[in-house]
Amino acid sequence: MKKIRAIIIGASGYTGAELLRILLTHPNVEIKALAADSNAGKSVAEIYPHLTGAKLPTMQKISEVDFKNADVVFCCLPHATSQKIIKDLPQNLKVIDLSADFRIQDVALYEKWYGEHFAKDMQKEAVYGLTEIHRDKIKKSRIVANPGCYPTSILLPLLPLIEKGAIEIEDIIADSKSGATGAGRSLKQNLLFTEVQDGIGAYGVTGHRHSAEIAEQLGALLTFVAHLLPVNRGISSSIYVKLKKPLAEARKILEEKYKDEPFVQVLKDGVTPTTHMVRGTNFCFMNIFEGQQKGRATIISVIDNLCKGASGQAVQNMNLLFGLPETTGLEATAVFP
Amino acid sequence: MKKIRAIIIGASGYTGAELLRILLTHPNVEIKALAADSNAGKSVAEIYPHLTGAKLPTMQKISEVDFKNADVVFCCLPHATSQKIIKDLPQNLKVIDLSADFRIQDVALYEKWYGEHFAKDMQKEAVYGLTEIHRDKIKKSRIVANPGCYPTSILLPLLPLIEKGAIEIEDIIADSKSGATGAGRSLKQNLLFTEVQDGIGAYGVTGHRHSAEIAEQLGALLTFVAHLLPVNRGISSSIYVKLKKPLAEARKILEEKYKDEPFVQVLKDGVTPTTHMVRGTNFCFMNIFEGQQKGRATIISVIDNLCKGASGQAVQNMNLLFGLPETTGLEATAVFP
Amino acid sequence: MKKIRAIIIGASGYTGAELLRILLTHPNVEIKALAADSNAGKSVAEIYPHLTGAKLPTMQKISEVDFKNADVVFCCLPHATSQKIIKDLPQNLKVIDLSADFRIQDVALYEKWYGEHFAKDMQKEAVYGLTEIHRDKIKKSRIVANPGCYPTSILLPLLPLIEKGAIEIEDIIADSKSGATGAGRSLKQNLLFTEVQDGIGAYGVTGHRHSAEIAEQLGALLTFVAHLLPVNRGISSSIYVKLKKPLAEARKILEEKYKDEPFVQVLKDGVTPTTHMVRGTNFCFMNIFEGQQKGRATIISVIDNLCKGASGQAVQNMNLLFGLPETTGLEATAVFP
Amino acid sequence: MKKIRAIIIGASGYTGAELLRILLTHPNVEIKALAADSNAGKSVAEIYPHLTGAKLPTMQKISEVDFKNADVVFCCLPHATSQKIIKDLPQNLKVIDLSADFRIQDVALYEKWYGEHFAKDMQKEAVYGLTEIHRDKIKKSRIVANPGCYPTSILLPLLPLIEKGAIEIEDIIADSKSGATGAGRSLKQNLLFTEVQDGIGAYGVTGHRHSAEIAEQLGALLTFVAHLLPVNRGISSSIYVKLKKPLAEARKILEEKYKDEPFVQVLKDGVTPTTHMVRGTNFCFMNIFEGQQKGRATIISVIDNLCKGASGQAVQNMNLLFGLPETTGLEATAVFP
Repeated sequence: MKKIRAIIIGASGYTGAELLRILLTHPNVEIKALAADSNAGKSVAEIYPHLTGAKLPTMQKISEVDFKNADVVFCCLPHATSQKIIKDLPQNLKVIDLSADFRIQDVALYEKWYGEHFAKDMQKEAVYGLTEIHRDKIKKSRIVANPGCYPTSILLPLLPLIEKGAIEIEDIIADSKSGATGAGRSLKQNLLFTEVQDGIGAYGVTGHRHSAEIAEQLGALLTFVAHLLPVNRGISSSIYVKLKKPLAEARKILEEKYKDEPFVQVLKDGVTPTTHMVRGTNFCFMNIFEGQQKGRATIISVIDNLCKGASGQAVQNMNLLFGLPETTGLEATAVFP
Repeated sequence: MKKIRAIIIGASGYTGAELLRILLTHPNVEIKALAADSNAGKSVAEIYPHLTGAKLPTMQKISEVDFKNADVVFCCLPHATSQKIIKDLPQNLKVIDLSADFRIQDVALYEKWYGEHFAKDMQKEAVYGLTEIHRDKIKKSRIVANPGCYPTSILLPLLPLIEKGAIEIEDIIADSKSGATGAGRSLKQNLLFTEVQDGIGAYGVTGHRHSAEIAEQLGALLTFVAHLLPVNRGISSSIYVKLKKPLAEARKILEEKYKDEPFVQVLKDGVTPTTHMVRGTNFCFMNIFEGQQKGRATIISVIDNLCKGASGQAVQNMNLLFGLPETTGLEATAVFP
Repeated sequence: MKKIRAIIIGASGYTGAELLRILLTHPNVEIKALAADSNAGKSVAEIYPHLTGAKLPTMQKISEVDFKNADVVFCCLPHATSQKIIKDLPQNLKVIDLSADFRIQDVALYEKWYGEHFAKDMQKEAVYGLTEIHRDKIKKSRIVANPGCYPTSILLPLLPLIEKGAIEIEDIIADSKSGATGAGRSLKQNLLFTEVQDGIGAYGVTGHRHSAEIAEQLGALLTFVAHLLPVNRGISSSIYVKLKKPLAEARKILEEKYKDEPFVQVLKDGVTPTTHMVRGTNFCFMNIFEGQQKGRATIISVIDNLCKGASGQAVQNMNLLFGLPETTGLEATAVFP
Repeated sequence: MKKIRAIIIGASGYTGAELLRILLTHPNVEIKALAADSNAGKSVAEIYPHLTGAKLPTMQKISEVDFKNADVVFCCLPHATSQKIIKDLPQNLKVIDLSADFRIQDVALYEKWYGEHFAKDMQKEAVYGLTEIHRDKIKKSRIVANPGCYPTSILLPLLPLIEKGAIEIEDIIADSKSGATGAGRSLKQNLLFTEVQDGIGAYGVTGHRHSAEIAEQLGALLTFVAHLLPVNRGISSSIYVKLKKPLAEARKILEEKYKDEPFVQVLKDGVTPTTHMVRGTNFCFMNIFEGQQKGRATIISVIDNLCKGASGQAVQNMNLLFGLPETTGLEATAVFP
């Protein structure tokens, strides 16, 4: 098979590095170009010494990238910047955008949280890339809006339950905890080792951008609170729901939905997922438990925010777009301990 | 002033070590005896090398301790064992019990979660030692049932709100995260560094012993889920409530209640408490935020589980019992970073 | 190609888990049996929930394993136990032993550090499995004594320098720091999260078993001090040597030796290796620096103790034994961050 | 006793915060002013929320501080800036400088490592503030150059041994590991949580500024390599020396020297110091061990870099300058676990 020719824009951030980690051992991908304006001219090893020895192109300016000889572009830029680049890309390219720019169909909602949208027309063309849920649409799309990390962990368990009418959609509370890679490689005081280590803190308590993304997918507002963990990778979401069907039935719905999915594991009754179980993988491990109050249930769902929550799911979507088995290049089990 | 003569039983666990840390700089306490059956005959420095150089009695068997020349006993034994020892202590001694044995007034409820109770008669005599709430009763008591760590973090914000009718008591969800010291110094595989580090996991999802304790104090059942953090000390509780009064009023209730309390800080509007802020201290930092769904609020409350959540509050109660300012020996601010 | 049929004995420890992680994506290996006496009858997912979903045999007693239908055995037992099992294995099997049992040729030296040796005759048959150094001998061997983790990090830089006469062999100090997985999954108080987290401690200061292994390979005694880090994986060794040739020449020796090695990277002049760069990989990253005292040099060498320091190198040796490219199944770059 | 009126300049860094932590419970100190140009006008709680509730002055510009009504100034500025401020302070003030500016008597040596010196005349006036070594001189000084963190951990064990001729001064290797607070609160990529966590790296391998400070005190050059740990506080130095006297005698020298010192503990033979033992304290724990090569010894020495390695020793020096017991305000034992 001819290799898929891939370009990564915004390659010097953590999601870029994670894409490199995955694609370097992907049997069907050839990395044609890496773009990162601020690091143009540098080798990958200068920015990420752990990639010393890997055969990779030198970083370029985005404006200098040859987009013609390529099949797919992974866009790892911040929101707003992402739109501006993507709208000018050649039409023959498949685009997988890891920013928030095309995740929200409702432009007004987008603009409330993220500011002006510069490619409104393309919004409709984009498909929300939660693979297990929107597989058929993604397959036929040109632009995939790769989901946010928190939304991935929350939507995978909730959407099948909502679809089957097993839970109240107006009474959902998601308490999520994330590793620090979720905040990227930006220089902020609150991301220093000394400020994060050996403690935990909530953030965005009154509202978080990902709420909008989740709400649009759910079809209703939820309460979503994020917490920063002294952990590199991993999101654990504890989701508190009201049942409209018996717990056993809700459990069955999840088991049915995911029984043939390679990346989603509904654990055995009673086993609690932890982020350690999915570190470095494209898995989502989940479970549903009897609530402590009548008629309620607690769902625990864990992913690796950089992998299934970003670059891993992006590669899963690429596999889907190009007719490969979705697991190609993503078979790794957790780096544990 | 004559020094308070204190005895610590079960001195070789982490709450024992924390008591030593506090009492060694307490100006009004003299440590008369340390008891720990399994370590009898050893010096403290053999068990806790960080206390090398501290002038402390050698560990003894409980049966060999001279309880007559003492004023107060801190009992750091596991539940069940604790009762058996406490019921035979001389009546002149004040007792501060750090186990769960006397925390729950309803003996049937206790036995559901902890097994047989061996000192049922004394149950009534014990006072629940949440100092800021039950100060007047504690002052006159002989046996103080020192609260659990999770309950302390959850009850301090909730009780004043319930008392003033500001929240629904039937619709409370508390998602708590705790450092690993909460599990003590016991040899369990899931407490190994390699299993805890760089990840998070929920536990006791369908029910946790502390639920009973919290529920009895609240007067209603809540949903309470605990999580184990890769952190030594610290509990952060995110508490999701339904408001019966406007948020501003709820906020006011907390500010009023705690405005003169030396150990409880209601932070400025918008500032999120993190466990780093209370590491090594007897503080509870809390705040209340507008919920993301109409009529709801989110409360964040943090403590150091070993200090305000155990030994610090125990010393605060001792100060109260003996007429000292509650802050004596507990003035330290956080060890940050 | 017909798949290599592999058996893992002692599969429930961390080196066993790491072998599973690697072999599950190895294209040429079929895992035929997993043995772990204490966990016989259990599924892998019960012991390592992160492997839920992986298709793996149930754990068996060693005595029940069918060794006939196999090509290679990975032995992950503790020393002493390992010998007793290995000496009774069928002669047609290749054996890769991850314990210390066959690493030291000098039986007296072995017995000084590890106690009685129960398979002295086989000692000569075994080859020390430091692949980059003893490749030719390993290729023809039946029993590979897979090197210790500390020795791997120390010997890879030192042996070429000694061979070419670039350093004094009588004046070597190796100060090594290791992640906690090096100590295995054993229940010891000093391995609890709470005792390891947020600090560092030396151990085995006056002598460490790995000293014997290193000394035999070097041909001289060194000073070797180990330290336990609050880190899961990774060894960093800082090695202080006296030069007999100019630094530039020493550097050249290392670069020459390793220029075609897929797993050893001599970093660019001035770049310091850190364990983050090799986390989850089979790499050794090293560098040599001008010493601060005249005529001295400092070498920094890092590996992942569970991978290149144990199971990764074991698979590399298996590849070598069965004529596969050494990198098969081991191409992954670091899980960073 | 009249309280000592203290001013802290550069109060918004970590050493400033640590001074506040200590001085807030110091019975004989009154904090008169806090200066930090970049944060002037802010309350301490805005910069360090863990100090919410503490009664402290608002941050001012240095130029606005009233130095007349004060007794002592703690200067926590970066080097170079420090000199410029200190040379214009009123002569009646005692000055304790936590920067490197007055630590090195040899101005040429200073300038080699730190650049131009702007207060050369004052260099002679300053006394190197390693309290246990230079107590008599410090007592009579006006300007105390508070020692660096690495030097404190290395010099405390070495200087008595050198004084008594127990070790070769030309053959010393110090391999030191430090928590990340040693690098301060500066925004650097290599100090992000994600870059530090779960790994270790050496730095300054070919030379570190603290080498100069150590060398001047020792009277000879040593090899000193620093490592950055995923730890908040703590330095552990492993020091490799050649003995000129028997080990037992060297041990005796240390025990004699420190037997009455409140902050230095020579541990029992065989017990290894770890940084956990001194976290949050002003202690130095040390031990000396038989080397693995003939005639050598290994010394392990640990401190809390922010406390004994910076602000704790600064307060110890202040106590000395003002005739207080050195332990005043510094009695705390380790926050362990």
